Amino acid sequence: MPRPFDEIDLLAVNTVRTLSLDAVEQAKSGHPGLPLGAAPMAHVLWTRHLRHNPADPSWPGRDRFVLSAGHGCMLLYSLLHLTGYDLSLDELRRFRQWGSLTPGHPEYGHTPGVETTTGPLGQGLSTSVGMAVAATHLAARYGDELATRVFVIASDGDLMEGVSNEACSLAGHQELGNLIVLYDDNTVTIDGHTDLAFTEDRAGRFAALGWHTSTVEDGNDMVAVDAAIEDALAVSDRPSLISVKTIIGFGSRDAGTSRAHSDARGPEQQAETKRALGFDPEHFFVIPQPALERYREALARGAEQQAEWEARLDAHPQAAELRRIFSGSMPEDLELPSFSPDDKPMATRTASGAVIAALADQVPELVGGSADLTPSNNTKPKEWTDFQPGARTGRYMHYGVREHGMGAVTNGLTLSGLRAYGGTFFNFLDYMKPAVRLSALMNIPSVWVFTHDSVGLGEDGPTHQPIEQLATLRATPNMTVFRPADPNETAVGWRVALERRNPTALALTRQAVGTLDPERHPVADAARGGYVLEGDDDPQVLLIATGSEVHVALGARALLAERGVRSRVVSLPSFELFEEQPQSYRDEVIPPHVHARVCVEAGASLGWERYAGDGGAIVALDRFGASAPGATVLANLGFTPERVADEAQRVLTENPEPV
Amino acid sequence: MPRPFDEIDLLAVNTVRTLSLDAVEQAKSGHPGLPLGAAPMAHVLWTRHLRHNPADPSWPGRDRFVLSAGHGCMLLYSLLHLTGYDLSLDELRRFRQWGSLTPGHPEYGHTPGVETTTGPLGQGLSTSVGMAVAATHLAARYGDELATRVFVIASDGDLMEGVSNEACSLAGHQELGNLIVLYDDNTVTIDGHTDLAFTEDRAGRFAALGWHTSTVEDGNDMVAVDAAIEDALAVSDRPSLISVKTIIGFGSRDAGTSRAHSDARGPEQQAETKRALGFDPEHFFVIPQPALERYREALARGAEQQAEWEARLDAHPQAAELRRIFSGSMPEDLELPSFSPDDKPMATRTASGAVIAALADQVPELVGGSADLTPSNNTKPKEWTDFQPGARTGRYMHYGVREHGMGAVTNGLTLSGLRAYGGTFFNFLDYMKPAVRLSALMNIPSVWVFTHDSVGLGEDGPTHQPIEQLATLRATPNMTVFRPADPNETAVGWRVALERRNPTALALTRQAVGTLDPERHPVADAARGGYVLEGDDDPQVLLIATGSEVHVALGARALLAERGVRSRVVSLPSFELFEEQPQSYRDEVIPPHVHARVCVEAGASLGWERYAGDGGAIVALDRFGASAPGATVLANLGFTPERVADEAQRVLTENPEPV
Repeated sequence: MPRPFDEIDLLAVNTVRTLSLDAVEQAKSGHPGLPLGAAPMAHVLWTRHLRHNPADPSWPGRDRFVLSAGHGCMLLYSLLHLTGYDLSLDELRRFRQWGSLTPGHPEYGHTPGVETTTGPLGQGLSTSVGMAVAATHLAARYGDELATRVFVIASDGDLMEGVSNEACSLAGHQELGNLIVLYDDNTVTIDGHTDLAFTEDRAGRFAALGWHTSTVEDGNDMVAVDAAIEDALAVSDRPSLISVKTIIGFGSRDAGTSRAHSDARGPEQQAETKRALGFDPEHFFVIPQPALERYREALARGAEQQAEWEARLDAHPQAAELRRIFSGSMPEDLELPSFSPDDKPMATRTASGAVIAALADQVPELVGGSADLTPSNNTKPKEWTDFQPGARTGRYMHYGVREHGMGAVTNGLTLSGLRAYGGTFFNFLDYMKPAVRLSALMNIPSVWVFTHDSVGLGEDGPTHQPIEQLATLRATPNMTVFRPADPNETAVGWRVALERRNPTALALTRQAVGTLDPERHPVADAARGGYVLEGDDDPQVLLIATGSEVHVALGARALLAERGVRSRVVSLPSFELFEEQPQSYRDEVIPPHVHARVCVEAGASLGWERYAGDGGAIVALDRFGASAPGATVLANLGFTPERVADEAQRVLTENPEPV
Repeated sequence: MPRPFDEIDLLAVNTVRTLSLDAVEQAKSGHPGLPLGAAPMAHVLWTRHLRHNPADPSWPGRDRFVLSAGHGCMLLYSLLHLTGYDLSLDELRRFRQWGSLTPGHPEYGHTPGVETTTGPLGQGLSTSVGMAVAATHLAARYGDELATRVFVIASDGDLMEGVSNEACSLAGHQELGNLIVLYDDNTVTIDGHTDLAFTEDRAGRFAALGWHTSTVEDGNDMVAVDAAIEDALAVSDRPSLISVKTIIGFGSRDAGTSRAHSDARGPEQQAETKRALGFDPEHFFVIPQPALERYREALARGAEQQAEWEARLDAHPQAAELRRIFSGSMPEDLELPSFSPDDKPMATRTASGAVIAALADQVPELVGGSADLTPSNNTKPKEWTDFQPGARTGRYMHYGVREHGMGAVTNGLTLSGLRAYGGTFFNFLDYMKPAVRLSALMNIPSVWVFTHDSVGLGEDGPTHQPIEQLATLRATPNMTVFRPADPNETAVGWRVALERRNPTALALTRQAVGTLDPERHPVADAARGGYVLEGDDDPQVLLIATGSEVHVALGARALLAERGVRSRVVSLPSFELFEEQPQSYRDEVIPPHVHARVCVEAGASLGWERYAGDGGAIVALDRFGASAPGATVLANLGFTPERVADEAQRVLTENPEPV
């Protein structure tokens, strides 16, 4: 049954359009084309379908709206202001200005109502798949209260990016009926018409991925958009892609061309377009009262929906657990396994698997998966079942060989209140880096489980051996990188990952390492990022290492002792955590007056000068690895106690005495 | 007309299988499953279709064969040995051992006959698209001699990775009839059956991407495989995907299961499988003479084909140019534009555009494109036309919003003898890093044009502002990173990129910078990676900077001069080039005795300690950027002459006199 829209709806749509246009012109930069073209579909969604409460953007029972085409953010900012989020008109006037709440692309945690950071294309759509998984999973475990829907507006760019094909293939496999994507099919990108490069049958592709697809021939036809959304909502066993044919820059002189995509067009065209939309070009940021009222209906409707939801949640048998989960806090007193030096040598990836298993019952919101390396990443506790179409309570996801999709989905799970991790080989960080970066930019606690963390992985060779990956992540703001030396440090790493609110990357060995005796070594201090593992109070030389190379440093210390040299081994699993410590602690661990230092890590040297100092040496890898048994590779590339001890003696000769 | 295969063909297939199995067992690691399942299709390709000459793997007229599923490399190594490439049986015995020519995944430049490095899934298939583009383009410009074909064997993982969807969508758009992909459809990945995560209609997806698709129901039916390839070869206006249903680990006890994917199964199963394949389990690396003879037919056939081709090439009117191109050498005396300080300030991305335009006629093999940022990356010379289905001589590629696909295709173009560049925003390096890494691992001269290289890009904000990208690339072995300070340094960067044989990344500004006066500043020395741009012979403090921040350093120097402090500005566009210089030169530029140093770069600080030293300061960015006009962002984040001058005075106080 078609539902009509009246002239106030049209006025409201044109209000969004002119607000967006005025903001872009005021900023003298931005992307007017998408808001002008896509405002009608957004209006239909926001007034007829989206369950949300502008007064409480954190309401866990809300539907999610993701503007995957983040460059069109004035569309979103306009809707957030108009429906009553805490985003003033002044902020719209300050679009793209220093310190405003309206940056050039939507940023989660910065602007109320922004569900995820978008702009890097494909990420929003792919993250939405994670949100849809989370809602499906939570609803199955806890009840219908949590059965929220996810609505997305996506662009050509979102559909071209490989990450979205990965995530959307998974979404089709997973039969995510709660995911509805409106594809703003405007046939225009920055370079020109999509005929230049993007002529595939998009709907055909999505149908092949297992999606329900439909088309709206005229994006200004809100009745048709509404009907298509209704149809999509009725499809419960497949995600939906609604291709909405729109005209980029609708109403402007450049409508339908790539000129309309980005940049302010100047006051003349601004006036002309506003006139075409029925607005007075002499006035700016004008919101007609009837339009405002229509949008502000969201406040009363949302308050009522949330109140009903809160009452249901209060009556929920697991109310306390759910409230805790949605608060983002961990259960108190997490118990982590401890490992004994009497255990036989174990890879830190194996220890990580044991820690996850131990956490499974304590942290019910913990969920995870692997990009088709489950037996290698040790990411699946034995007791866990898979999340699948017929098994929605499963906590484990087989992502397939889709690292990037996994990254974005993991972010979506995390943004939905779950504590999610994703595993792959460390070298394949590269495949998912844009999603990992977004976890850092959003400062959300996604956990990245990277096993096979050095050339020590051996035979698979340089295509699989990370070199620059530690430097890449250490240079990424907000990221905690943790490379444990043994099973107990691995447990500390997991505690760090869960108790902090920023993302953590765990770098774990493929090969077995010894378990350091917690009676002899203060391994719990790994939580401080770096600590004195073993050594003389008055060392002549410092041996600073991470991960598996800590054992090489210990071997070197034994050799040095035989040679009459006093040394200290510093385990430095995390630069970031160590640098958060007070200077006094850092100076205790790495005394500034000891200039003879050797840093040891089977990765790029870049960044180690920070700890080596002018007097130090760095035993690292500024070349690609090699295919051979891991121990051979490590030895041939210089990661031996002998080499480290020799370097220590060399630097000691050059820096004879602590000053 | 079906073409029969005889018992020698079957013996040959089983020889490949048992060689592969013996090598994996000998190495006690590797992936036997693919060679056992896919040997028949490979046999058909290599004996009936592939035009190649094992005696000359560099013959430009050869067809390309790419094993995208690189983990199955024993299949390839077996075929290379059997058909007569310079790869001995001893090398097969030394599979995955230190120093062997048979690493765990195929490496270009390491093993004769390996056309591109594979193993990171999706890369081989995507790189093949570039090879198919190159052959199409070269044939259109120079004639049919260069109309080679590209054959690929790809796996489930290759099809799941997003990069391959990007590249294959482009291949469909580009109607690359010379690209034929055999999809080893064995329904098994590491985690288990593909039903766990990969249930899409693959052929349907490829059909939607514009591909010809077909199916071979039994991968052991070589007649059917041969017929499918013949059919695909007859389709000239579309790439072809032939889904070949195979049994992973065929012949072994674990056939058809994920256990067959990887790892040696031990002598008992080895013996059992060899017996099933008709081979004596007591003998290893056995090559029956008839099988060898069948494969070695490639030598005579290839020699004849190449001789005919060489004769045609000798008679070609552009023989000299083609010979030079295929030798990989540049024309002598490249003339680059020079820029005058009287020019109005210009972004280095704009200068880069001018340099490309100047090179276009001088370097006929230069081709390039952008991932839908052509007007922003300045990658398209005005005179150039687009490479499109109806326009094969065009030298410019619109890649769409597909950075990763662009990366792999650029590598494929480069591997085919063209000099190819690809452009995007620097921050979106992250989207294409696996391909950029492969250019470094292969050590091939792909050129990466990264514009919008810092927070100075302004309003687009932190989603688009690189921070950790310079550190990422500097930590990547074999990569030359070049961040020019002005238009003339930009020209030097392009010369470096073209004259060297390793990959180069150019980091270019969005914002205008002044042109440094070549009369006053020895900008040509930028080719040495670092040089004294301006300053006192006897400086008290060094100001070391790259790119746009060199101008900040110059401003600081002027302020310091007013304050009576002698300073020197070092422009350091490339760490890697500078570190190749003799120590004496480096000490001249950065005198070791001057400990008061300030390093300035609008990116992560990680790695700058190398030049700052213990006494120095680093003005950098260990946080994400912000959305505001670029000059505001740079100023508010500390990139001002005042801040740098103040830091200089501070470090000078701490390091009062050069020692």
